[in-house]
Amino acid sequence: MANPDEIILKSIKGPVGELYAGKIYEQIPFAIKEFYFIRNVPDGKIARGMHAHKKREQVIFCLLGSFTLHMDDGNKKWSVAMNDPARGMRLKKRVWHSMTDFSKDCVILVVADDFEDASDYIRDYDEFLKFVKI
Amino acid sequence: MANPDEIILKSIKGPVGELYAGKIYEQIPFAIKEFYFIRNVPDGKIARGMHAHKKREQVIFCLLGSFTLHMDDGNKKWSVAMNDPARGMRLKKRVWHSMTDFSKDCVILVVADDFEDASDYIRDYDEFLKFVKI
Repeated sequence: MANPDEIILKSIKGPVGELYAGKIYEQIPFAIKEFYFIRNVPDGKIARGMHAHKKREQVIFCLLGSFTLHMDDGNKKWSVAMNDPARGMRLKKRVWHSMTDFSKDCVILVVADDFEDASDYIRDYDEFLKFVKI
Repeated sequence: MANPDEIILKSIKGPVGELYAGKIYEQIPFAIKEFYFIRNVPDGKIARGMHAHKKREQVIFCLLGSFTLHMDDGNKKWSVAMNDPARGMRLKKRVWHSMTDFSKDCVILVVADDFEDASDYIRDYDEFLKFVKI
């Protein structure tokens, strides 16, 4: 069964390399206000993320290498192996998430529907559980 | 002298890796309608690009590895070594551009102010010179 949170980019693979493209309101379900990318995550037991957003929605892509994306909506927990540049995952609001198992060459791209705002973060897991159960 | 076409992203480097962020109307001078990324460009004498856009404006970033970006506005030609993820370059409309010298690990991200449109491309250099001299 297709994952409803999966985003499939348009891809072109040929003798001069691979290109993956996403358009707003077509592949990406919102206007992009901010993007960020992550690289050079050290080897070892590194975890990133460990927060939820009250309102901000994002889509996350693994451009090179691999990592594992863990999500938790307060009722269920699930993990996704991120190793295909053409397949992004929606990181919806009110979802606790973390990232682990970064390959040395891993490059991650995230596009977001709103600007960074410290007050939009929930960084305490117990507070998150209370927030999603309201 | 600072290059007026250079875009400097906000960067955070720490024990869990490097993060680079760009916001529309702050680092990026337009609303992003489309993005695309390029990877796995084969070793050797590969050149990509070799076109100009009539209207579409873009910003190009080198997320990992390196490449050389060549630009030509019909009056002057210049090249930029792209090897710093924090430093993007504007790829303005009416600029003939190509990319060469890709490192094996090179990952490129481009954000654009409009959707892909075949009629917006000029793929013939002589036609480009005529276009920009009108």
